Amino acid sequence: MVLKKSISILGSTGSIGTSTIDLISKNPDQFNVVSLTGNSNIELLAKQAKDLKADFVCSANGDNYQVLKEALSGTDIEVGAGESAVLEAAQRDAQWVMASIVGAAGLAPTFEAIKRGATIGLANKESLVCAGDLMMQAVKDHGATLLPVDSEHNAIFQVLDFDRPEGIDKIILTASGGPFRTSSLDKMSKVTPKEAVAHPNWSMGAKISVDSASMMNKGLELIEAFHLFPVEEKNIDVLVHPQSVIHSMVSYIDGSVLAQLGSPDMRTPIAYALAWPQRMKAPSAKLNLAEIAQLNFEEPDLERFPALRLAREALQTGKSAPCVLNGVNEIAVSAFLNNQIGFLDIPSTVEAILSKYEHHELETIEQVIEADKKARQLALQAIEKISK
Amino acid sequence: MVLKKSISILGSTGSIGTSTIDLISKNPDQFNVVSLTGNSNIELLAKQAKDLKADFVCSANGDNYQVLKEALSGTDIEVGAGESAVLEAAQRDAQWVMASIVGAAGLAPTFEAIKRGATIGLANKESLVCAGDLMMQAVKDHGATLLPVDSEHNAIFQVLDFDRPEGIDKIILTASGGPFRTSSLDKMSKVTPKEAVAHPNWSMGAKISVDSASMMNKGLELIEAFHLFPVEEKNIDVLVHPQSVIHSMVSYIDGSVLAQLGSPDMRTPIAYALAWPQRMKAPSAKLNLAEIAQLNFEEPDLERFPALRLAREALQTGKSAPCVLNGVNEIAVSAFLNNQIGFLDIPSTVEAILSKYEHHELETIEQVIEADKKARQLALQAIEKISK
Repeated sequence: MVLKKSISILGSTGSIGTSTIDLISKNPDQFNVVSLTGNSNIELLAKQAKDLKADFVCSANGDNYQVLKEALSGTDIEVGAGESAVLEAAQRDAQWVMASIVGAAGLAPTFEAIKRGATIGLANKESLVCAGDLMMQAVKDHGATLLPVDSEHNAIFQVLDFDRPEGIDKIILTASGGPFRTSSLDKMSKVTPKEAVAHPNWSMGAKISVDSASMMNKGLELIEAFHLFPVEEKNIDVLVHPQSVIHSMVSYIDGSVLAQLGSPDMRTPIAYALAWPQRMKAPSAKLNLAEIAQLNFEEPDLERFPALRLAREALQTGKSAPCVLNGVNEIAVSAFLNNQIGFLDIPSTVEAILSKYEHHELETIEQVIEADKKARQLALQAIEKISK
Repeated sequence: MVLKKSISILGSTGSIGTSTIDLISKNPDQFNVVSLTGNSNIELLAKQAKDLKADFVCSANGDNYQVLKEALSGTDIEVGAGESAVLEAAQRDAQWVMASIVGAAGLAPTFEAIKRGATIGLANKESLVCAGDLMMQAVKDHGATLLPVDSEHNAIFQVLDFDRPEGIDKIILTASGGPFRTSSLDKMSKVTPKEAVAHPNWSMGAKISVDSASMMNKGLELIEAFHLFPVEEKNIDVLVHPQSVIHSMVSYIDGSVLAQLGSPDMRTPIAYALAWPQRMKAPSAKLNLAEIAQLNFEEPDLERFPALRLAREALQTGKSAPCVLNGVNEIAVSAFLNNQIGFLDIPSTVEAILSKYEHHELETIEQVIEADKKARQLALQAIEKISK
């Protein structure tokens, strides 16, 4: 008899959540689902809970309680709703937790899972970007295990020798360069939201697609990498690689560079995290390099992609800077998607606020959430001025 | 105080031997040299022995005893010569042994090191190609450790999860494709030795350069990989990659493909093997992918490169077939380099003899050496016929 791994999925109806469920459904004998959480897609959430025979399911939105309860009537699945229910979902005793709630809302539940010493598939960028120091300290204090799900960090995790950090030379994050990799600054100043969300390799949500187009996404990943791996900021490089086949690399002092490659399918890193330290089959298309035929590489252009520089500066500044960078960026991207500001106004808004903000230490989750809120307010004010 | 690693280098004056000594000399506090062996370059051998303060040094050629003894007069370095002295060099108590004697002569000394349960940097292709089953059994029986030094196998070793072979999908050996990668069969039938030894990426000896041009080298590596790693023959692929930057890859069942990349400098895999399981600095040029800009991949053409097919068939046949393949190939390459036969006569000679040979099990080193000799005699006879 195989012992089942008990798992909870925080954010089960999103892109990472549904891919995780796809993998679990294909291996029903290996997993036992404890909690599922979603937000507004109650129909899908209820279906997932029934299909996977979850113990507990909840919506982050308290208003959805009745609908969810009714959708699950006649089952013995426990139902909850609201922020405290999501915390409860994270607290329930699953060995493995997928932290895939998007945005600042994912912060507190991720910490609940850490406090239990769980093994966590981490797909919530904000928790590391905004609260990296706090989070890594909590991981250490509670003996939790973080398995990065982002394809870049997952790649690094697969080829980094954590036992011998003295042998590591650098971490090399690869970046597709996005849809404006070869565009002029002038052209970039005029791009539309539609052009910006057309990512060349990965099918993703609008927000992350815009971040990819501005390369802020790589900047956020730089900050994440700093917290996840035993390297200094100056030893994390970014390399543009348009085909996104090499997902990232680690170079060692003997000249070896280890890399993880694959098709652009999130089910590979999710499967890695789900099965770790074993491996499980994933239905991702197999990489066929002879068919791809060519891989290209170039240095990133920090002039056309200032977001990358800003993220590095925020990381160097530390304290509240990465949290402010992230909060302002989210508001600016949203304003760009609503046609309120131009594409290049995104990094310039971030830079303006970051440079004026009086950065302070973030010592609790509450302080992180406060700094995030404040950054967003400042961003909204700045954008109002620009768009007038 | 750092405990020094005691090491012996079998074949210290060759390309791998001198690179190994280059690395040791840069880290004199980490290594303590037990034995060195060479063949005809007595001047260099004596200098190495003095510089490294070796305990014992010998030439494989008994005639060189006096010259070597005189070159080391006034030192307390013990001197030997002849085949038995090389065996003694391997038997002496070094924790780590570089097995870099070229050809069948390396077989017996490598086995002596294995019998002691030493950790062995394996650069002698013939031992695995000709006596793979015997060798891996001996490694198991005596608790020895094999660290492949060939850049391809070293790459695989670095990214293969030996603890969980069930997660491995395939091994992908990369091949430069050699100087005739894009040549027509007609052109290949007329190439000169000079054209054949001009390898595009690595600076190597004439024999291995011709093997690289015919892709027999990749065929021999396929056989080596089969013995070194827990995969079946059908799960070892060959992929042509002209830039030789990705040294080889392992694909896993979750869609991850792990690779080792680097500059074409043998000091990287040698340093890896020397320092294993740690890492040590190597003076190899750092890989700069932005500067290289482009990596290409294509399927190998088995029609123009029949050697690859022949090696795979020999591996499938097993028994004496790989040993015969290797022996005949060595003689045929030598005849090609002496302008006795054409380039395409190399694989056709191998194929003709392989198909007629009555293959038998090789149960002792002596049987291996016998089969090797017989293959060479048959090859000489066949070549005499062609070149008449």
